[in-house]
Amino acid sequence: MGIPNLQVALDHNRIEDAIVDAIAVGNEVDIIEAGTILCLNEGDKAIKCLRNLFPNKTLIADTKCADAGTTVARNCKLAGADWMTVICCATIPTMEAALKEMGTLQVELYGDWTFEQAQLWLDAGIDQAIYHQSRDALLSGGTWTEQDLQKIKKLIDMGFKVSATGGLTLESLKLFEGLDIYTFIAGRGICATENPAETAKEFKAEIKRIWG
Amino acid sequence: MGIPNLQVALDHNRIEDAIVDAIAVGNEVDIIEAGTILCLNEGDKAIKCLRNLFPNKTLIADTKCADAGTTVARNCKLAGADWMTVICCATIPTMEAALKEMGTLQVELYGDWTFEQAQLWLDAGIDQAIYHQSRDALLSGGTWTEQDLQKIKKLIDMGFKVSATGGLTLESLKLFEGLDIYTFIAGRGICATENPAETAKEFKAEIKRIWG
Repeated sequence: MGIPNLQVALDHNRIEDAIVDAIAVGNEVDIIEAGTILCLNEGDKAIKCLRNLFPNKTLIADTKCADAGTTVARNCKLAGADWMTVICCATIPTMEAALKEMGTLQVELYGDWTFEQAQLWLDAGIDQAIYHQSRDALLSGGTWTEQDLQKIKKLIDMGFKVSATGGLTLESLKLFEGLDIYTFIAGRGICATENPAETAKEFKAEIKRIWG
Repeated sequence: MGIPNLQVALDHNRIEDAIVDAIAVGNEVDIIEAGTILCLNEGDKAIKCLRNLFPNKTLIADTKCADAGTTVARNCKLAGADWMTVICCATIPTMEAALKEMGTLQVELYGDWTFEQAQLWLDAGIDQAIYHQSRDALLSGGTWTEQDLQKIKKLIDMGFKVSATGGLTLESLKLFEGLDIYTFIAGRGICATENPAETAKEFKAEIKRIWG
């Protein structure tokens, strides 16, 4: 079992705010994500800024692409993204088109996806999936359950590299002990703390304590 | 049965290109859409530019929102959008959060959505749905089928205002004859023609001929 990566999701409204946290935590985390909110508000400028700040860090464009896979992937790649996300209800042709341009895709799991669909994503060459607690579900009182963990385990057993995200805190990491998580993604869990750089270091230390 | 609206989808990569077609066809169509590609590449600037060009036209932000409904909707509204889109696999709390901010939402139908889910969207107060042939499916050889038309009819019978989109041309409008379509959405079908303004007028005339 590997040591999970730590990914910071920059879900700021504006790039001038996102880069403050990016600069603070960029060297502490393994992966930097231009969040959907940021991409929708700033456009490809967000990806370009983060790429210029961190030329050698894995950079993800969280587009949640649902259609026009070729164009969206090409634009993200041109802007400097290494990977991008597609939404689970995108059609297989959309995923294949995006994959061909981008090389690496992550399927974002929302709503009533099925393991039969997940097998189709694998068959299409997509080997990464992001298991979510949606922000809105969390705000409505949802939380990580044993059922979530079982689904993650099944995805891992199928062959997916699984990222977990949604309301993650230092304290909640241990919920995932024993699971071969590929990446933990935290947004506010890092950026909304008093000292984001220190929090990112604590996340890394806790991950190493549990999985190291 | 009403006369369907005509909506132009501006799916250009850059705002400087989108406004050329926006200016050409904006006064011919009923609704202007800042397409997903444009939103992801230009950010909220795309919505702001189109709002400033057309202060009184219904303007849609095609965000295909999957999460963080409150923030995405608030940002789109602040930029000047009247309506926005959510993806069908978003959770109900996400849709409710976006609806509360935006007032009017359209659910984008991709992948394996069900009529049971559709009833939940209606119950949540969402009365618009967009039935797609995805661009990538069309590129893979897909087309409008009797099954598509039956699904659209069922959505209309349930109470949805249904927009139809995906590879629409002047010639394909008659496929929908007899259906109470709310809006036809065309992107390249208008913008990629030799004279987009003339094409938009022809779309309007053909819609009036069939539904008038």
